[in-house]
Amino acid sequence: MSEIRIGQIGGLGWMGHTHALVYAAEPRVFGPEPAVPVLEMIAEADEALARKAAASCGARRWTANWRELVEDPDIDVVDIVTPNNMHHEMALAAIAAGKDVYCEKPLGLNASESGEMAEAAAKKGVRTLVGFNYPHHPVHAIAKSRIEAGEIGDIVHTRLSLNVDFLADPQAPFIWRCDKKTAGSGIIGDGAGHLFGFTQYLIGDVAEVCGNLETVVAERPVVEGAGVGLAVGNDAPREMRAVDTDDSAQVLLRFENGATGIMDSSRVHTGTKLEIGYEIVGTRGALSWDYDRMNELQVYDASDPVDRQGFKRVEVGPSHPYYGAFYPVPNIGFGYNDMKLVEVRKLIEGIAGDGELWPDFAVGHQIQRTIDAVIASHEQRRWVKVSEI
Amino acid sequence: MSEIRIGQIGGLGWMGHTHALVYAAEPRVFGPEPAVPVLEMIAEADEALARKAAASCGARRWTANWRELVEDPDIDVVDIVTPNNMHHEMALAAIAAGKDVYCEKPLGLNASESGEMAEAAAKKGVRTLVGFNYPHHPVHAIAKSRIEAGEIGDIVHTRLSLNVDFLADPQAPFIWRCDKKTAGSGIIGDGAGHLFGFTQYLIGDVAEVCGNLETVVAERPVVEGAGVGLAVGNDAPREMRAVDTDDSAQVLLRFENGATGIMDSSRVHTGTKLEIGYEIVGTRGALSWDYDRMNELQVYDASDPVDRQGFKRVEVGPSHPYYGAFYPVPNIGFGYNDMKLVEVRKLIEGIAGDGELWPDFAVGHQIQRTIDAVIASHEQRRWVKVSEI
Amino acid sequence: MSEIRIGQIGGLGWMGHTHALVYAAEPRVFGPEPAVPVLEMIAEADEALARKAAASCGARRWTANWRELVEDPDIDVVDIVTPNNMHHEMALAAIAAGKDVYCEKPLGLNASESGEMAEAAAKKGVRTLVGFNYPHHPVHAIAKSRIEAGEIGDIVHTRLSLNVDFLADPQAPFIWRCDKKTAGSGIIGDGAGHLFGFTQYLIGDVAEVCGNLETVVAERPVVEGAGVGLAVGNDAPREMRAVDTDDSAQVLLRFENGATGIMDSSRVHTGTKLEIGYEIVGTRGALSWDYDRMNELQVYDASDPVDRQGFKRVEVGPSHPYYGAFYPVPNIGFGYNDMKLVEVRKLIEGIAGDGELWPDFAVGHQIQRTIDAVIASHEQRRWVKVSEI
Amino acid sequence: MSEIRIGQIGGLGWMGHTHALVYAAEPRVFGPEPAVPVLEMIAEADEALARKAAASCGARRWTANWRELVEDPDIDVVDIVTPNNMHHEMALAAIAAGKDVYCEKPLGLNASESGEMAEAAAKKGVRTLVGFNYPHHPVHAIAKSRIEAGEIGDIVHTRLSLNVDFLADPQAPFIWRCDKKTAGSGIIGDGAGHLFGFTQYLIGDVAEVCGNLETVVAERPVVEGAGVGLAVGNDAPREMRAVDTDDSAQVLLRFENGATGIMDSSRVHTGTKLEIGYEIVGTRGALSWDYDRMNELQVYDASDPVDRQGFKRVEVGPSHPYYGAFYPVPNIGFGYNDMKLVEVRKLIEGIAGDGELWPDFAVGHQIQRTIDAVIASHEQRRWVKVSEI
Repeated sequence: MSEIRIGQIGGLGWMGHTHALVYAAEPRVFGPEPAVPVLEMIAEADEALARKAAASCGARRWTANWRELVEDPDIDVVDIVTPNNMHHEMALAAIAAGKDVYCEKPLGLNASESGEMAEAAAKKGVRTLVGFNYPHHPVHAIAKSRIEAGEIGDIVHTRLSLNVDFLADPQAPFIWRCDKKTAGSGIIGDGAGHLFGFTQYLIGDVAEVCGNLETVVAERPVVEGAGVGLAVGNDAPREMRAVDTDDSAQVLLRFENGATGIMDSSRVHTGTKLEIGYEIVGTRGALSWDYDRMNELQVYDASDPVDRQGFKRVEVGPSHPYYGAFYPVPNIGFGYNDMKLVEVRKLIEGIAGDGELWPDFAVGHQIQRTIDAVIASHEQRRWVKVSEI
Repeated sequence: MSEIRIGQIGGLGWMGHTHALVYAAEPRVFGPEPAVPVLEMIAEADEALARKAAASCGARRWTANWRELVEDPDIDVVDIVTPNNMHHEMALAAIAAGKDVYCEKPLGLNASESGEMAEAAAKKGVRTLVGFNYPHHPVHAIAKSRIEAGEIGDIVHTRLSLNVDFLADPQAPFIWRCDKKTAGSGIIGDGAGHLFGFTQYLIGDVAEVCGNLETVVAERPVVEGAGVGLAVGNDAPREMRAVDTDDSAQVLLRFENGATGIMDSSRVHTGTKLEIGYEIVGTRGALSWDYDRMNELQVYDASDPVDRQGFKRVEVGPSHPYYGAFYPVPNIGFGYNDMKLVEVRKLIEGIAGDGELWPDFAVGHQIQRTIDAVIASHEQRRWVKVSEI
Repeated sequence: MSEIRIGQIGGLGWMGHTHALVYAAEPRVFGPEPAVPVLEMIAEADEALARKAAASCGARRWTANWRELVEDPDIDVVDIVTPNNMHHEMALAAIAAGKDVYCEKPLGLNASESGEMAEAAAKKGVRTLVGFNYPHHPVHAIAKSRIEAGEIGDIVHTRLSLNVDFLADPQAPFIWRCDKKTAGSGIIGDGAGHLFGFTQYLIGDVAEVCGNLETVVAERPVVEGAGVGLAVGNDAPREMRAVDTDDSAQVLLRFENGATGIMDSSRVHTGTKLEIGYEIVGTRGALSWDYDRMNELQVYDASDPVDRQGFKRVEVGPSHPYYGAFYPVPNIGFGYNDMKLVEVRKLIEGIAGDGELWPDFAVGHQIQRTIDAVIASHEQRRWVKVSEI
Repeated sequence: MSEIRIGQIGGLGWMGHTHALVYAAEPRVFGPEPAVPVLEMIAEADEALARKAAASCGARRWTANWRELVEDPDIDVVDIVTPNNMHHEMALAAIAAGKDVYCEKPLGLNASESGEMAEAAAKKGVRTLVGFNYPHHPVHAIAKSRIEAGEIGDIVHTRLSLNVDFLADPQAPFIWRCDKKTAGSGIIGDGAGHLFGFTQYLIGDVAEVCGNLETVVAERPVVEGAGVGLAVGNDAPREMRAVDTDDSAQVLLRFENGATGIMDSSRVHTGTKLEIGYEIVGTRGALSWDYDRMNELQVYDASDPVDRQGFKRVEVGPSHPYYGAFYPVPNIGFGYNDMKLVEVRKLIEGIAGDGELWPDFAVGHQIQRTIDAVIASHEQRRWVKVSEI
């Protein structure tokens, strides 16, 4: 039984624990072949945090100096689970040290950063994976296989949405995602970034965009230690801080293959706890998926006789990729952590076996270019080609 | 019991029969007050057609000359149920004759026509109603009352869709809607026009648009007598005719009140038999409606305690406007013809009583300007203000 | 153009107006062949009511004496739209007069009554139709054709529900449906009766039942003129009257073909405005239908490859029976009154043409026997065969 | 950091791996307090299997003799993950050894076995938990708290379903669940058993039942190593074996609190991959839950004004019990394994802290009595009181 030794930078918070959890779960779901991931070392901002993270994540070792982790000879893969503005420096260091890199999305703060990262990885020949997570749900593999088999014909149009309301309350505190320096951009890089993950997987490159960005809530109260979900009483006057990232985005799309698209993404979408969805319309069929029913794909085949046409609800199950390792019963509640576990499974297959690593840094960069094209389009009030970025 | 005598131009086809049907049904649902609509005369293209239409519609008289109908002293309301390119001439003649006018949508082929029509009606002081139909469903009155009471706060964003697939098959024959001279425009004036009916009713004027129009199927076979739903065998070579209207539209919106919007509308939306829907997001709540569940409104109130928040499914019933006249039981299947009957009920209330006629020609013109702004935006690849039209 | 002259007994209230409405609408939807229904005469309880009913229903003549109507030589069909306890006497009189009879459901107060009615009709050779309404929606014709073609194999199990909450409030007033003398039985004869309408149409005869009946609200306030939907203030003390019909029923079923079934029906089903639904499970497929999406049938075909299985959502449209006469666009809002109109259309086809009249009095009687078997089962706390009734 | 040392009997198959997985995940989600579960030892049928199970489950030690495990002084909790017919002997041995016991459901093959197990546990004073799994989803805690607060008033009626189709194909091979000796009963003890888990949690004891059981597929092919999901070609003649457990069950219920209920459960429910759902109707409100949307509860409050009534869709999120430890975002895909992890979390809280262990062996026995009452009712064709068992 061979091991893949992970060095994880960032071991607290939701994603920190999630990565640790799926490393532990992976061999219990998929077995020990081709290799077992081991959380060899964890890095956090200081000794106390690192020690705490190592304990809760079950890491063998810890460090308060992430460069130590990057250069440690017993680390096979550097896993970057830090705020956006640290990805660039850390990934470049890991690449320089010859490590394979698994980096949470978005790849960089902007296309300039992501371009350097993709280039460095290519030059050095290391393997990379960006943590877009959602496309790894087996339900999308069904969609992809149908599209690739030509079952929906040529793609004509797509509609994509990712909306949440966790910042809809104007009294919700300022968090790092409201700060351009740390986050790079707002919902366009976060929510819409996920949507571009889907389009890259299922449709291909975006050629041209026309977008509009809003900052619906212009300033927010400053609250020590604020994160998602922290409630703030309205009674006390508080220091306010200007939000300099977008919280709502609307985009028209043109794909390289000629298809049109439309997208909205918002984090001030009152009432919507979590909406992620796509609809893909082709000349001979259509596909539709909605996160509220994340384990189902709606499939339409225009070649059915007219009185028997209709969207068929295909539930994900053991006959679809990866699902059977989790559950023998279809649609029994494949969840978020299972989805993340598939991503890590593919990491293992790509690093220790011959699996393809997707989306790698090149794809992550292409997504960042698309995001930057939307930002440019918004600023210039015109259609912008991704090739201009 | 007083009568309102209708002169209906166009008495065959779906809408012709539908108008006749709802005139007959109206007093049986709402009773004889303030007046009973009577189908006094029907006009069709020739004598045979007019005679046939009068029989099937139950009209008292018929004519093969619509101008005769318009000028008949025993006609109170001229009802125009003809292809788009005839609305302008007929409505102007009716207005000139001092008749109140009920005209199917779109008001004209373009804003130039609709502007003249609205102006003429205003000058002459006749009452007008444009047959946008859908907003008259009682479910939207619920939405409107919630918005007007401030229950969802300031409107921030809206998403609108109207999609069908009746022209998705490239072998579906050329129909008059494919011909710019007859139809004025494609889905942007038809489906998106309906969506602008909703936005006028619920949100207010659109200020600015950025749109893209497509003609996905560039030519279609010519088939004698082709209408919606006519199947064509693929075996015989047929004469093809170029389609010069759009069959797919995507639009970004900015409303006068600052809200953003996003819209898609298509008649080549494979698999979608009929989708009409809106979502309206405010600072304090949200509303969502979908034609597949046309008798329900989803309502979200952000002031609920966080562990009790959620969209509430409000089913239309006797406690909502107009519904009780039809059915004593909520959500028992209020249908399309019932919706059209509410429109005619409002016509009766507006003509014989003191009800407001909405949307009148002024609103119809505003919608046409918005449509034309999208067309201009598409052609010029830029944001266009409705005030530019 | 030939006429079928209707004599309608009961012309006020919801159903009274609905019958009048669909008679007027029928030729405008289906055209004048094979005959046009004409509301020749209406009967009501006294002169004032009859005059009023004739005006609002558009009847040619009226009478305060229903026996006059039944014996009038210019009446072709007697249409009985009165409370349950009058069906028996009126139908027998109409049959004796040689009239065809269209009677609202339930056929009689009990199987003794319905048996006499069915026998009399058979003896006299008149044509009959019982107004079960719901099975006439075109969506069920799809279900029936699939079953008859063997597409779902042998039927194994069915689940049926009809629930409403209009009597859930204990303060909702006593209405005639709470009175056994007038109504015959409670929800078992009303809601469950409708469900047996579906099973007769789609599955066949019920062989054996085991049921339980409840009267959840044992007494209700007496309010003058109370009907469905009348609200009552809680402040004033009111006279209470004991409810002697069931308001909630649960039934296990065994069909003649061996299939099992389960059913619940209630009018105190808090929160449920109107639920009607069935699921039919076969050895090779399954069908599912729900009134909330009354224009769709969910269809499952077990012969699909395992990774492509799923319920397909078939939307009713012009390719299905009767629909196309109403609307050229699928799933555009076929509503309750449209459904009732199909029933009347079939009446016309059966009386003036060669259409089958279903469900006739024989079927109505079979349904009543099934209801009575449930009542007997409840009283005797055992399984009861329908053949025992 | 204290440990709770688990001795797991049965470490292969779905449930074996699932238990191991959630033990590893628990501290990574909930942190190390009050104790961390450790998979101290695993027992399997022989050395090779035990060795393999220990490797894939990450157990410290293994044994081919489960009695060794039960008596090992370093085991705190014995976890029984074996076929039904072994629960009784193993649990009694573990109790005799003074171990706390965590046993997969059903507790025993019948009420005789489960009664002995519950009695032994009570006598010895060990803590017990039966692995009913589903009620631990946080969404049901919402339901329970609403019911206990009286928000839906007195419970009047409930409808419950659990249906799957994994044995719908008559060619699906004979598995141990088809064998009464191993399984105890069929779907009545398996699927319906889960439904009784919900009723015990939310409603209380069932008083009386009337049920019907079917064996729709009377014999099945014998296939070496057959489990759920194994496909069998139809070409070769195979030895057939008679199925002596039920595969479809229908039940009428009466609860101790007077509420009625109706239930169906089947494993030959063609087309239904996994349906689990309940609807609970009270005098003042109602609750509805469906596994297809397992992270939502539909909640109805009859005290809302009549024009604002409706089911509200409450999505599970960080404001509800246990959820926040997994995800900071509501309704992001809480899955099956997360649900199982909550069960294990409660085990830890109950063993190492002061949490209540529910459902313990006493509750497991009460469920088994209810199941046996249904079986008796089926055999005797009458209503049977649970107190008769």
